[in-house]
Amino acid sequence: MSLTLHNFFRSSTSTRLRVALNLKGLDYDYVAYVLRKGETRTAKYLAINPQGLVPSLEREDGRVMNQSLAIMEWLEEVHPNPPLLPKDADGRARVRAIAYMIACEVHPLNNLRVLGYITDKFGADETAHKEWFTHWVAMTFDALEVMLDRDSETGDFCHGDEVGLADICLYAQVWNNRRFAIDTAQWPTIAGIFNRLDAIAAFRDAAPPNQPDAV
Amino acid sequence: MSLTLHNFFRSSTSTRLRVALNLKGLDYDYVAYVLRKGETRTAKYLAINPQGLVPSLEREDGRVMNQSLAIMEWLEEVHPNPPLLPKDADGRARVRAIAYMIACEVHPLNNLRVLGYITDKFGADETAHKEWFTHWVAMTFDALEVMLDRDSETGDFCHGDEVGLADICLYAQVWNNRRFAIDTAQWPTIAGIFNRLDAIAAFRDAAPPNQPDAV
Repeated sequence: MSLTLHNFFRSSTSTRLRVALNLKGLDYDYVAYVLRKGETRTAKYLAINPQGLVPSLEREDGRVMNQSLAIMEWLEEVHPNPPLLPKDADGRARVRAIAYMIACEVHPLNNLRVLGYITDKFGADETAHKEWFTHWVAMTFDALEVMLDRDSETGDFCHGDEVGLADICLYAQVWNNRRFAIDTAQWPTIAGIFNRLDAIAAFRDAAPPNQPDAV
Repeated sequence: MSLTLHNFFRSSTSTRLRVALNLKGLDYDYVAYVLRKGETRTAKYLAINPQGLVPSLEREDGRVMNQSLAIMEWLEEVHPNPPLLPKDADGRARVRAIAYMIACEVHPLNNLRVLGYITDKFGADETAHKEWFTHWVAMTFDALEVMLDRDSETGDFCHGDEVGLADICLYAQVWNNRRFAIDTAQWPTIAGIFNRLDAIAAFRDAAPPNQPDAV
């Protein structure tokens, strides 16, 4: 199966997919888009992804898939090993809930288009961007730290000692946090998990600074 | 199985879960929280949900589940009939992608805590709230209308002629849009799907105005 990943090195949702593809042992062609230059807003790219967002995953049969979480669930169904979700329904619900805490509560508020919009509408400067970004990270990471520290299911990683969907979202978000120099050490359980993930090649190789378009 | 839904009539993510539980034919006890009064920020509720968000689903065995999307995937696994996702992997990816377009790109930007924060930080008034809310709805709904109109998979509902996860998220978001009087008719495919959903008891009974705490 030949796969083409339309993405951007610094995009957190792109990082998620790179990790997932690496974990599943799937090769892909890397096509980079510079968001600030509007390269995802061209007619050609909008035909691939009407939202004008990265990432998209293009398959050999021409089908294009959007939304990183949907693509990761598809990868899990089509390439079940190694698994990104536990076998039991309760475990799967817990892993997905952690993934969605990040994917639905943190990332959507902190991406480039939102930061651009608060500048356009409210004159937000770089200091206000940092305050905005940090606020939404802390609101969810504070709660996530409580949950991870409390739950017996937490192991070396978010759920037991095998990596999965929650770890992928966590890893990508911590990299995103570094844009605003947010210190992960204030959340010791999260920091420990991140450090263990960062020692795994499938994660490390997917990190923003290790991509061909990194600047 | 006895289920308790901790929720709020106007919360879009609560509406999703009410629809899903109705479609699965599962009864639940309804416990209402008034967000503006801080009723989800009490020590008692934070023990249930460290994020201080609704909805949470509490089970007879005491386990509490968070994040509406994770709970709906769990419902689908534990109570597979009637299904909320198609049988084929491509169809499942498409349905999830539509659901996440709404759950990850629209709703997170437009909930109460974000509107409150742009008032605190930037002095946004009711007019600015409407502009903010409308901007993020239109950005995704414009793209979603293109996709739904273009894709041969679209039927009476988002994916074929059976309702599912994408329809649930769409239905809840359109109700949310009414808070700011956004006219769905500007997206004719979406409007047609919404009207057909609104004629189904499992959806209609879950709508905000039909809840015991509706004001």
